[in-house]
Amino acid sequence: MIVILKKHPDQEKLRALLGGIEALGLKTNYSEGTETTIIGLIGDTTRVDVDAVRANDIVEDVRRVSEPYKKANRRFHPDDSIISVGGVKVGEGFFNVIAGPCSIESEEQLTSIAQEVKRSGATMLRGGAFKPRTSPYSFQGLENEGLRLLLRAREKTGLPIVTEIMSETQLEEFREVDLIQVGARNMQNFRLLKALGTCGKPILLKRGLSSTIEEFLMSAEYIMAGGNDQVILCERGIRTFETAVRNTLDISVVPLIKRLSHLPVIIDPSHAAGIAWMVEPLARTAVAAGADGLMIEVHNNPKAALCDGAQSLTPLQFDGLMRQMRSRVSFEGKQFP
Amino acid sequence: MIVILKKHPDQEKLRALLGGIEALGLKTNYSEGTETTIIGLIGDTTRVDVDAVRANDIVEDVRRVSEPYKKANRRFHPDDSIISVGGVKVGEGFFNVIAGPCSIESEEQLTSIAQEVKRSGATMLRGGAFKPRTSPYSFQGLENEGLRLLLRAREKTGLPIVTEIMSETQLEEFREVDLIQVGARNMQNFRLLKALGTCGKPILLKRGLSSTIEEFLMSAEYIMAGGNDQVILCERGIRTFETAVRNTLDISVVPLIKRLSHLPVIIDPSHAAGIAWMVEPLARTAVAAGADGLMIEVHNNPKAALCDGAQSLTPLQFDGLMRQMRSRVSFEGKQFP
Amino acid sequence: MIVILKKHPDQEKLRALLGGIEALGLKTNYSEGTETTIIGLIGDTTRVDVDAVRANDIVEDVRRVSEPYKKANRRFHPDDSIISVGGVKVGEGFFNVIAGPCSIESEEQLTSIAQEVKRSGATMLRGGAFKPRTSPYSFQGLENEGLRLLLRAREKTGLPIVTEIMSETQLEEFREVDLIQVGARNMQNFRLLKALGTCGKPILLKRGLSSTIEEFLMSAEYIMAGGNDQVILCERGIRTFETAVRNTLDISVVPLIKRLSHLPVIIDPSHAAGIAWMVEPLARTAVAAGADGLMIEVHNNPKAALCDGAQSLTPLQFDGLMRQMRSRVSFEGKQFP
Amino acid sequence: MIVILKKHPDQEKLRALLGGIEALGLKTNYSEGTETTIIGLIGDTTRVDVDAVRANDIVEDVRRVSEPYKKANRRFHPDDSIISVGGVKVGEGFFNVIAGPCSIESEEQLTSIAQEVKRSGATMLRGGAFKPRTSPYSFQGLENEGLRLLLRAREKTGLPIVTEIMSETQLEEFREVDLIQVGARNMQNFRLLKALGTCGKPILLKRGLSSTIEEFLMSAEYIMAGGNDQVILCERGIRTFETAVRNTLDISVVPLIKRLSHLPVIIDPSHAAGIAWMVEPLARTAVAAGADGLMIEVHNNPKAALCDGAQSLTPLQFDGLMRQMRSRVSFEGKQFP
Repeated sequence: MIVILKKHPDQEKLRALLGGIEALGLKTNYSEGTETTIIGLIGDTTRVDVDAVRANDIVEDVRRVSEPYKKANRRFHPDDSIISVGGVKVGEGFFNVIAGPCSIESEEQLTSIAQEVKRSGATMLRGGAFKPRTSPYSFQGLENEGLRLLLRAREKTGLPIVTEIMSETQLEEFREVDLIQVGARNMQNFRLLKALGTCGKPILLKRGLSSTIEEFLMSAEYIMAGGNDQVILCERGIRTFETAVRNTLDISVVPLIKRLSHLPVIIDPSHAAGIAWMVEPLARTAVAAGADGLMIEVHNNPKAALCDGAQSLTPLQFDGLMRQMRSRVSFEGKQFP
Repeated sequence: MIVILKKHPDQEKLRALLGGIEALGLKTNYSEGTETTIIGLIGDTTRVDVDAVRANDIVEDVRRVSEPYKKANRRFHPDDSIISVGGVKVGEGFFNVIAGPCSIESEEQLTSIAQEVKRSGATMLRGGAFKPRTSPYSFQGLENEGLRLLLRAREKTGLPIVTEIMSETQLEEFREVDLIQVGARNMQNFRLLKALGTCGKPILLKRGLSSTIEEFLMSAEYIMAGGNDQVILCERGIRTFETAVRNTLDISVVPLIKRLSHLPVIIDPSHAAGIAWMVEPLARTAVAAGADGLMIEVHNNPKAALCDGAQSLTPLQFDGLMRQMRSRVSFEGKQFP
Repeated sequence: MIVILKKHPDQEKLRALLGGIEALGLKTNYSEGTETTIIGLIGDTTRVDVDAVRANDIVEDVRRVSEPYKKANRRFHPDDSIISVGGVKVGEGFFNVIAGPCSIESEEQLTSIAQEVKRSGATMLRGGAFKPRTSPYSFQGLENEGLRLLLRAREKTGLPIVTEIMSETQLEEFREVDLIQVGARNMQNFRLLKALGTCGKPILLKRGLSSTIEEFLMSAEYIMAGGNDQVILCERGIRTFETAVRNTLDISVVPLIKRLSHLPVIIDPSHAAGIAWMVEPLARTAVAAGADGLMIEVHNNPKAALCDGAQSLTPLQFDGLMRQMRSRVSFEGKQFP
Repeated sequence: MIVILKKHPDQEKLRALLGGIEALGLKTNYSEGTETTIIGLIGDTTRVDVDAVRANDIVEDVRRVSEPYKKANRRFHPDDSIISVGGVKVGEGFFNVIAGPCSIESEEQLTSIAQEVKRSGATMLRGGAFKPRTSPYSFQGLENEGLRLLLRAREKTGLPIVTEIMSETQLEEFREVDLIQVGARNMQNFRLLKALGTCGKPILLKRGLSSTIEEFLMSAEYIMAGGNDQVILCERGIRTFETAVRNTLDISVVPLIKRLSHLPVIIDPSHAAGIAWMVEPLARTAVAAGADGLMIEVHNNPKAALCDGAQSLTPLQFDGLMRQMRSRVSFEGKQFP
């Protein structure tokens, strides 16, 4: 971290500033120029409050040179992390496809979709039991009954199950879930993140609608700081001015995260586009970008789906997509786990 | 709500669609043209899932004509709501100023700031006990000890207290708080919103960093749907491409919300700008726009603040601001409560 | 400007880099630390290509400490600029209101509106002769005939006239125009900006839909670099994710520009909101923020306007607005010129 | 187009509105419901000013059902357009790679890069003679001398040449250029677009930094409305809140444009990312998305480049990229022209 001082700083304030920095266990490297005087901060600067230093009278500006995250940082963990979800490996070399309905609606619906997506090659089953809906009047999910149906579908198909948690109070009920999803709107629900840091289960962390990549990695860091290294990141589109799609898929996130972090990253093209026909072209770009997998909404009757029908594939469309994916995944030198 | 059909719709699918709509208790108004055929939906359309209807094979598009919120909607509640916070009135005709430190740091700090802002004319005291910080390594607040200090400061000054809740599990601890704040990052933490709907206390709901005004009002609707009508809205800047300020204050939200809703709306210029010197000009625009109040960070030593020091005013600066505000509030024909 | 080097830089490359910088007439201040080595660049760094330096093998990062604009910079020109438009003063202490129709449609229309807005207190007349329309099939303006009608309206009312230029090839035809407007979509039409730099006439430069404040000031710098210091800046809303308004008025631009630059800045609330009823509340915030004026669309029959009818005020509504403005401008200690 | 009326419209105003619509040569389809009354507009609605209709007293809202562009619309031109650039085919089935330096710096530089990129498989040569730079103090290009050097490089390599035009006044000087580029900042320079509509040469139209896809296609429509159907679209990243990349590549634009239009679309990963190492992963996603080609910056000495060095590949890196591209293009069933 570099602190740029204003010209001719008050000497007493300067001593106080240097003292404060050193009190945090950091060394300082003071270099005075004719125009600009700079203090370099050496050591673990993750605890320095940039804004507080910037508020100091004698400070012109403060700039970070290194990233504020440590456990998620590839610098300190050069090898790719491979995370095991119910025995299925996620991470470099493997390509996972998580598929299933937006909302769980009935045992029949879920089991039938689960069997079909498994037959097509999906490696995990998704299904929403608790749904974060913009309107309080929309269907909110089957809740605990939905969780029960997920467990039964796992029994029948052997697929690990993925579902979204809404609050840290639900951890007990999610005990049997293989991969706990944190939704985009909860990416900075820090209480939830902290609780997940000690739950001992793999976490699927979705990027917030307007979160920077640094904030995204800092949320992963929250979970990891608690001792849970099993974090899978998921890009699902960001909010921009464009109205032709529901969200703008930020595909550059894949190479960026691969460079900055060792964590696996997957793409959710269903939420990104919000339109069923666009799932397949976006899924192709995910494979090409180097993503570790996909998360796809599949519904046996999208026209009657209780939520997000517009973006769900039919099992038949999903089967066609998986045929495509197989040759592409193999082209990239990866394999299904 | 209007459903626009594709040309020559399959008659069986059309009957099914009309049946489905009517099953929701709605009437339909079918009008066939040479180019476009339209179904008008009459009745309470808040329960209709627009995306699900749009996914129907025979549907070209679906458009809402009315807003999806009811209890927050001025159409059904033409008079301005006035909300009482610890005896202090918030809403049309009154101008409130909530002031205090970003984080509570010590009893001495909080009491001293509380007494100073009261002397300058603040009508409520804010102070963060639980802090939502981007980094797990940053200061997270004094937590329950902070709540205790807030209560003591209220005793000494008589000012109602405002502080941020992080999770619905804290409701018991927040029993004595006069106005419970929901932070921008929790604006769509639906579990929390639902719990607040039955807590019987006034809520200060901050707009999410990239929330549309409709989503903002829908989050208020979540609280109100549970039976709690005491919601105060707070604009605190949105995320845009501009980097010269921390957030872009969306001042147009004030007249828009005043037109769409009967709820009070206040402005937080400290978080919007992220720069202390810009608090005052933005506060002036808030009064002129018709806002019902301000929320301002004040710190006795911003340079040493444990968070957000860069945007805090000193008590002296705050006193200067309040002098300005008094004449402006009176110019607008409003009064301090 | 500060260049941060990677650890252990190749000494030959370092000599080459230092040589290159000094060849630009800059002095360097080299300071080596245990972790970070920094080169401070002293002198006029506006000619340094930051990206090119950053591409150097041995460079970790490059950061500007000072702004890349000079002539528009308040640092080098502390006093507010006052610009004379056809004898009317624009800038600190004065508040101007430019009013008139979006498009000029006929002599009768323009003259009648011009007389009405003058009576209500407008200080300049606006009217579009050449219209930048998104669709090639929309009305493109009366073109040269529109310019002729503007001159006639000036004769009749004495109001200086403001109209938009589309290309540097039109400069001859705009010879008689008092204030030449550069539209938001042309803010970075650098050929046009250069040509305006030598035209000797006052320029009204509108901010681009997604331009940062720094880019906005750099476009002013283009004009000023050619020798023309008569630039008035105009904020007209930026593009964000919000869809409830046409554009999001960025009111913070007013205090920011007042701090960074000495140039006058006005607000166009008509284009910002895109809705007639919102013009008045936004105009109030402009005065409160410290803007030097407003630009308002007025049409005698907005329902039949050939463009932007939705955001135009009737002359009667404009008269009501001006009544408001008069007391507010006086409250701020300013006057109409 | 659908006009939604307010309840109980004034009958005289309604007659006037219907008359006005019919005067534009449109038929109307009037359907009255108990809650909502709707007028369907039948015919060519591209000339209807939506905002003007919306401003009418009796109108609640207006919605377009069909796209406002015709010549660029796939509905009216179902087959993919194939455009010939100096004998090289661009469009469905062919994959083009346009490569070369950001700025032309000298004959030696340009010729050497041209020969190297040709050897690696580039199908066209790019090079900036006139550079749109944010700062008036930055290098503005070799201008006409640059054009001359491009022609010489074409002679030596046979590659068609692509370069950016800044103003319609330059058309004469660009007579010999094979593909005339319109930069992102000029995407809505309507005078320039109109002039290009009659120039008889292929145009490469880059998407504006914050342009919607509809606006992008409308700008193509401007050129096509003048009679020039040879338009190639180029996505180069959009402006969002993310700061880790220069621009956010909007990869969904490829499938969207392929569905909405028959025009070819290519991707510029160099400007999207602004970082050299990210060019290759983004180029992979372009092929997978179905783009018709790439535009890549290549410089023999990026560290000393006079502009955009940070994002340029060396000829060696470009050669590696092309090796990748060959197998991927063939995987997609396409070929180099």
